[in-house]
Amino acid sequence: MDKVIKIAVDAMGGDGSPKKIIDGIAHHYQKNKNSFYLIFGNKEKIENLIPKNLNNDSYKIIHTNEIVEGTDTPLGAAKRGKNTSMWLSINSVKNKEADIVISAGNTGALLVIAKLNLKMIDNIDKPALSALWPNKIGMSVVLDLGANVECNDKNLIDFAFMGSALFNSLYPKEKSKVALLNIGSEEIKGNEMIKSTYQKLNQIENSDYEFKGYIEGNELMNGDVNVIVADGFTGNVALKTAEGTANFITSELKKTMSGSIMGKISSLLNIKNLKKFKKRLDPRLYNGAIFIGLDSPVIKSHGGTDYIGFSNSLNVCTKIIEGNLVEKIKKNIS
Amino acid sequence: MDKVIKIAVDAMGGDGSPKKIIDGIAHHYQKNKNSFYLIFGNKEKIENLIPKNLNNDSYKIIHTNEIVEGTDTPLGAAKRGKNTSMWLSINSVKNKEADIVISAGNTGALLVIAKLNLKMIDNIDKPALSALWPNKIGMSVVLDLGANVECNDKNLIDFAFMGSALFNSLYPKEKSKVALLNIGSEEIKGNEMIKSTYQKLNQIENSDYEFKGYIEGNELMNGDVNVIVADGFTGNVALKTAEGTANFITSELKKTMSGSIMGKISSLLNIKNLKKFKKRLDPRLYNGAIFIGLDSPVIKSHGGTDYIGFSNSLNVCTKIIEGNLVEKIKKNIS
Repeated sequence: MDKVIKIAVDAMGGDGSPKKIIDGIAHHYQKNKNSFYLIFGNKEKIENLIPKNLNNDSYKIIHTNEIVEGTDTPLGAAKRGKNTSMWLSINSVKNKEADIVISAGNTGALLVIAKLNLKMIDNIDKPALSALWPNKIGMSVVLDLGANVECNDKNLIDFAFMGSALFNSLYPKEKSKVALLNIGSEEIKGNEMIKSTYQKLNQIENSDYEFKGYIEGNELMNGDVNVIVADGFTGNVALKTAEGTANFITSELKKTMSGSIMGKISSLLNIKNLKKFKKRLDPRLYNGAIFIGLDSPVIKSHGGTDYIGFSNSLNVCTKIIEGNLVEKIKKNIS
Repeated sequence: MDKVIKIAVDAMGGDGSPKKIIDGIAHHYQKNKNSFYLIFGNKEKIENLIPKNLNNDSYKIIHTNEIVEGTDTPLGAAKRGKNTSMWLSINSVKNKEADIVISAGNTGALLVIAKLNLKMIDNIDKPALSALWPNKIGMSVVLDLGANVECNDKNLIDFAFMGSALFNSLYPKEKSKVALLNIGSEEIKGNEMIKSTYQKLNQIENSDYEFKGYIEGNELMNGDVNVIVADGFTGNVALKTAEGTANFITSELKKTMSGSIMGKISSLLNIKNLKKFKKRLDPRLYNGAIFIGLDSPVIKSHGGTDYIGFSNSLNVCTKIIEGNLVEKIKKNIS
């Protein structure tokens, strides 16, 4: 039988919790019978939500009434102490009771509490927040998405190593291709920090990825590269702009499609294709930011996602542990 | 009769020039009879392209055989000297023979030759490259889009003044609402430079715009603000990411729509609506970056646009002169 993967789950974060968390676990479990879930939160509420098809020996509930609120500042959340469901779930990976931890709660709080409790991987200066983006061929890993507003070239090089290790864990059959997000593809473009990063990455030999130089914003989704590296400010702006543009276009499309009777009829005829389109762009597929650089990865599910989205984030947990992400990062960095 | 607006046109830049330039002029002239075009380029070629409906007294051709190539570096282009169509057209606004200058040629070259020839507006430290973006309600001005990779708070404040003046020139009936592009809406988010800019903009009273604080990438197209300020690195990444996302989504949509016979049939039925959708997102509508901060504005049309797109950029020229953009900037800055 496969090795058991122990996932610490903060059951109390995000909208519609703990129900969507438990439904997500049940959904994930159907295809991942080698999972064991340590579920942190209100025991009574959680017990009532557990469905029949979730085996008794596949989970354990660790009770707490204390939770981090979505409105807490990161430090405010940390000050709530060691009995919140978020803190306890992170603490369980620190104590090696779990392999990986996931929460749909307050992002800032999760990053701060994780940094307070977990050690950095040796020789990594700053952990980074990464996520998956669709491209014309498949998926890309993008980092940093806002954990580090100011970065230096060493940080960006670490992000390249970590992003490449993450891509290789998630897609073991593909080769990772790393690029730096910049404002031009010529070597002379960009700020000093990015140019120095380019020079250094270009000199590294025998890496487990291919270094493809610079990439511009308009090429992010072409699929020519699959690991995109930026400082946290730039990466966050790029991710959110892509999100805003996608929303704008689909809302304009919806307006057009329902603007006339003929539009409505033909949209109905086309419903299967439109569904396929929607599925391709379903944000639940890309749900789950991954906080890497600590000696145990921390997964952040989007607070507003539903149980399918949460289940997809649990899938990311499984792949990361099966892919030995932390070992891969250590190997890249040494 | 309306005041005559004199537009210096570099006829030799961009794909398909000079034909698309002359066709664009003819198209623009139909609705802007108060225009006079100083056309710089190969006289013989241009004369053969002039259509009958362009009055003889509405233009003058200034002959030169020298042109800036799309592959020239900015400095290489400047070294070609003072007889290129680009240099001559910029020189004509310097000499007050024209009110404004437009080129579809090499962007870097245009910025450098403009900076070499035109004076800065007093108290503006750096000129900025701005453009128009669609939003759910109308249009926004976004700047800087890459002219200044590194900026300080004074630069961003100048961009706010200039962007607001540009918006008011283009849309005189609307009130400009300025926001800073950042990675969160709370005051504490972002880097030191952006926080300091926020504080200073927040203290300015009696401005001709409303200061709306920070905006995140995903809100850029909501229409809540219409002047978006960023350093050139961030602005460029945001603009290009939006472009790449739009391309990705429309190509995925096209794939879906033509993926089956039923898809094809219903797309045919829906063709009118899809055309309306396409029109709403037509990049030609937003064609034309505007280089502001110099004592005469410089308009850059996209090199790949067609004559309709070029004509729209000529429209921007007309509105900028009728709206007294440079006077408005001077008033804001003083």
